Formats: sequence, structure tokens, C-alpha cells
Amino acid sequence: MKGKLIVVSGPSGVGKNTLLNRVMELRGNVQYSVSATSRPMRPGEIDGKSYYFVSREQFEDLIRDDALLEYAEYVGNYYGTPIKPILEATQNGVDVVMDVEVVGALKIKKRIPDAVLVFILAPSFTVLKKRLEGRGDVSKELMEQRLERAKWEYSQAEHYDYLIVNDGLDKAAEELMSVMQAEKCKTMERIHLIKEENECFIPQ
Amino acid sequence: MKGKLIVVSGPSGVGKNTLLNRVMELRGNVQYSVSATSRPMRPGEIDGKSYYFVSREQFEDLIRDDALLEYAEYVGNYYGTPIKPILEATQNGVDVVMDVEVVGALKIKKRIPDAVLVFILAPSFTVLKKRLEGRGDVSKELMEQRLERAKWEYSQAEHYDYLIVNDGLDKAAEELMSVMQAEKCKTMERIHLIKEENECFIPQ
Repeated sequence: MKGKLIVVSGPSGVGKNTLLNRVMELRGNVQYSVSATSRPMRPGEIDGKSYYFVSREQFEDLIRDDALLEYAEYVGNYYGTPIKPILEATQNGVDVVMDVEVVGALKIKKRIPDAVLVFILAPSFTVLKKRLEGRGDVSKELMEQRLERAKWEYSQAEHYDYLIVNDGLDKAAEELMSVMQAEKCKTMERIHLIKEENECFIPQ
Repeated sequence: MKGKLIVVSGPSGVGKNTLLNRVMELRGNVQYSVSATSRPMRPGEIDGKSYYFVSREQFEDLIRDDALLEYAEYVGNYYGTPIKPILEATQNGVDVVMDVEVVGALKIKKRIPDAVLVFILAPSFTVLKKRLEGRGDVSKELMEQRLERAKWEYSQAEHYDYLIVNDGLDKAAEELMSVMQAEKCKTMERIHLIKEENECFIPQ
């Protein structure tokens, strides 16, 4: 059985990475799709794990080589999804989770219609604002940009398959794992089980 | 939030009741929809719990009073779903699970399109046959009827939303609970969260 592609979006500061890490801790056979980006590395981030950190020039080479499933520019930086590791994992039955911003996620859904799109909501706008303020690494201007962006992102959430409110890590992780599990139970994913079984289905 | 209606079908002997009991043990806020039937009570069954056991005449009164969500005749007996308890439970945010044969399940889906249809498969036809033979309460003729019926039921499984193979109670229960959980995370079920939030979403 092929692995599923689970695309997670949500405003900056909503806790997407923590959530995905938790799901990978609790559930086997899941791989994180590492994005490529031209934005500078933040403290604590690891190249090849958080992102593949590349220069703008290198990123433009990836675009030219058609090596990205999607890419977008956001607040002056490129973000994109390398295709090859995703295809390899899903062919081997491994689920792939990724954290992709809205424009990229919607592009992926167009290209791979059975990708599962999950939008992560903050418990409230006030909580989201506080989380962003808690991150000391942004200027007031960038903060305002992010809040405007979050507003627009929320307006796009209706195009997603599922909405999960991150009002508790364990609850949100459980919901995301349920979505991953349920998607594998869909009739379309398992229809071969009926066809195979029906061939030897000769009441005696 | 309204409760969901989860309609479970599958061939006789596949373990639907055991599965639903397990799910109700493990998950709160779930109610079993007790069907009405005109078939005789089997050893171990309890009136009002396994089924509402009624006479053919009483069943025909229920039909006339439009008190059933659906009903069907199967191997000479009536089976039907009383409407009222389902509406009351879902209005109160309680999920309702039911065990309904295929014809009834497909009728329910037409009448309540957001009902979730789950078909339970045996691990194999051989296992299903053995389970039916293990039940000492059926004649050879009824056994053959059931196997023919099972064959036809499998051919209808493609109209269901999800397929679950009952090749282990815990695994099957986990999958069914994931389906119930994931259905509640669907964007359509939660879209009000975005609308409400967006109203106070004025970046300052």
C-alpha cells in the first residue's frame, strides 16, 4: 500500500513543527519532508533537518531543474518542496508529512489530488499573537506582516480537507493521527481488498 | 457540535457487534442505535439492547407511522431503524453508531448524506465461512443463503465511505475510532471556527 502525503499549514507560531514532531514520535512509518528555503537559519535549526538552507541562486537552480513539487516566495524568501524524497517514501509505503505554507499547499493539492490538506488553527487570535510576540527574533514590522498573513491564511483554510485546533499538543496530535489513519481506511484506498476477495468468493 | 451518525455494515459473522461494543467501551459520548426487528431472539440477545424484538404486525405499524429511518426485509424478517432516538442523540452532540444491513445503510446515506458509512470485511472468505459454521444456530440452507448474501454485500461495499478489515479486534476498533475522530475534524464540520475567529482577526 502506498504512503499518504499529509500537507500541514497554519499561521506562523501555531505550533506546526512541535505537532509534527510529536506525531512522528508516536506513529511509525512517517517521514518528514524537509523543505528547501533561502531564508536565514534561526537559532536551534539544523540544515537538512529543519530545512535545506540554500542561497537564492541555488534555489533558482532547483526551480530551473524542475526538482520542486511547489515553491513560493514569502516575506522575501523562497520556500519549496523537493519532489524526489516524497516519491521514494510514498512508493515504499511510508507516509510523508510536510509543513507547507498555504499557496504551496494548494498547488500540491492541484498536482496530487489525493494529498491530504490539514490546516492548524490557534485556539484564538489572542493566543496566536502572544506566541508570535514570545518569539524574540522578529521586528514589529515583520510581526505585523505575519499577522496580516495569518488573517489571509485563515481565509484560505476552507480549501483544506481538515481543520485541527492546536489547543493542546496531545489532543491535536491525536486528531492528526486519526486523520492519517482514517485516510488509509477510505474505500478508494482499499477497494482492491474487495476485488481480490470477490474472486475467491464462490459459496460452496 | 452535533453528533455524527456512523453506519456499520458487513456480512453476518464478521464481528460487527463485538467491534461496536469495543468502540463504545473505549470512547465516550457514543450511543448504539438499537434496531427493531421481527426475527426471533437468539440465545444471549436482550430485548431493547440487541434489538427491539417485535412481531411482524407491530413492525408494520412502525412502517405505517413513519417511525423508521429505513427498513428492509432480509431472509424473511424485517429490520429497521427507529428515527427518534438518533435525532435526540445527535442533537445533543452524541455520536450514534449502528449496525445496519447494506440496503438500509444505502437508504440512510441518501436520506442523511453526512452519515458515515463503514463496511467491515472479514480477513478472508475462508475465515468468514468458518465463523458462520461455528455458530450452531443455522441450517445448511440458511448458511448457503448467508454466503450468497455476503457475496452480494461485498459487491456493494464500494458505495461505503470506509472499509475496515476485522483481522484483530483492537486494530479494527482503533481504525473505526480514527474514522469517527477524523470525520469530526473535516473542514465542513469546523468551518464555523474560522468564521468566528476571523471576525476578531484585526491585526493591531
